[in-house]
Amino acid sequence: MDLILISVPVNNIFGLIDKVLDVVGDNTLVFDVGSTKEPICNYLKNHEKRSNFLAAHPMAGTEFSGPKAAIKGLYVGKTNIICEFEKTDKKLGKLALEIFDALEMKTIYMDPKSHDVHVAYVSHLSHVSSFMLGKTVIEKEKNENNIFDLAGSGFESTVRLAKSSPNTWTPIFLQNKTNLAAAIDEYVTNLNLLKELIVEENDEELNKILNNTNRIKEILNKK
Amino acid sequence: MDLILISVPVNNIFGLIDKVLDVVGDNTLVFDVGSTKEPICNYLKNHEKRSNFLAAHPMAGTEFSGPKAAIKGLYVGKTNIICEFEKTDKKLGKLALEIFDALEMKTIYMDPKSHDVHVAYVSHLSHVSSFMLGKTVIEKEKNENNIFDLAGSGFESTVRLAKSSPNTWTPIFLQNKTNLAAAIDEYVTNLNLLKELIVEENDEELNKILNNTNRIKEILNKK
Repeated sequence: MDLILISVPVNNIFGLIDKVLDVVGDNTLVFDVGSTKEPICNYLKNHEKRSNFLAAHPMAGTEFSGPKAAIKGLYVGKTNIICEFEKTDKKLGKLALEIFDALEMKTIYMDPKSHDVHVAYVSHLSHVSSFMLGKTVIEKEKNENNIFDLAGSGFESTVRLAKSSPNTWTPIFLQNKTNLAAAIDEYVTNLNLLKELIVEENDEELNKILNNTNRIKEILNKK
Repeated sequence: MDLILISVPVNNIFGLIDKVLDVVGDNTLVFDVGSTKEPICNYLKNHEKRSNFLAAHPMAGTEFSGPKAAIKGLYVGKTNIICEFEKTDKKLGKLALEIFDALEMKTIYMDPKSHDVHVAYVSHLSHVSSFMLGKTVIEKEKNENNIFDLAGSGFESTVRLAKSSPNTWTPIFLQNKTNLAAAIDEYVTNLNLLKELIVEENDEELNKILNNTNRIKEILNKK
């Protein structure tokens, strides 16, 4: 084989990827697409076929999984993060880049530690916030018709990620636990701050915080 | 005039709507579209033209505001909540329903207190969660390119509501402060619970909670 792509929940990658690497020849590229990168890079650090491996994280997908969730052109214009590129054999690394270029992805490079910190905030915390929003609302609204009827006002998109697969996300949360716990703490601090301002009816400070956060509009509009 | 529609930030409605009601004739319908209903219903409780007023909340819109944010067919199939319908003059109430039907809205009825509790959870908490997610990520990611590059993985939709107008949302949060503060408390409790399970690496319980919350898929798919 020229290429083996490992796409399994991030806890199942251990014990699988090393067995695959054990039996491949020098010209086989093995890459993963997991949402955490420090654990897998550490795990394979001393593997004798380390140079056959490329650590990748294509930032693309939806809340749905399985063959029916396939989307044509899913990867076009999306970010692909590659870690420790220098540890991959040059020829195999070149092959990987050709594949990602053919998929029209935007490739960026990060060390595994930085990757896991950044995705804790920009990706994993979004999933935590969405799952817990769903939990809070389901617990309160015993009558599910109310959730459905009132979902139009923002809830539906904010809770979208809570439809994601628990088998995919449980191990991601666990593998990134230190970074994610810190992110959740900061998020909770901000929520408590906002609550205090609401309770104190501090409209000036409240407006200021919402205004500052509105900057997200310009940040996400750069494309 | 047959119809006066009051569509202003919910704090500006006081002092405006009563002056409007003061000068209208018996055949003029005045309705508001604010996101909180208990304060305005209480405010107009003893107004001598109370029967000219209808308290409405069409659950439709985007994170954008102003004329450029207009969307054709915005109201089709969306929920419209009417409060204290019995306090509106019958003929004027009928006119209002004809208008909402012509817009193809789904009208439901609630008392103002229940309305404000339900929207605290299903709408206002979504906005709080999204605004604070944006704040947390902006504070952490000093390099805004990282936010942009990594936004693909769920962040962009979860933070969408943080683009909303601070002048619209500050007074909504304040007018619904008691219900919203309770909702934020329950949300924070759930976030802290999830964090503990992550830190303890309790994958079984974590998976169970995410699975329970996945029900949101079926609830939102009822249409």
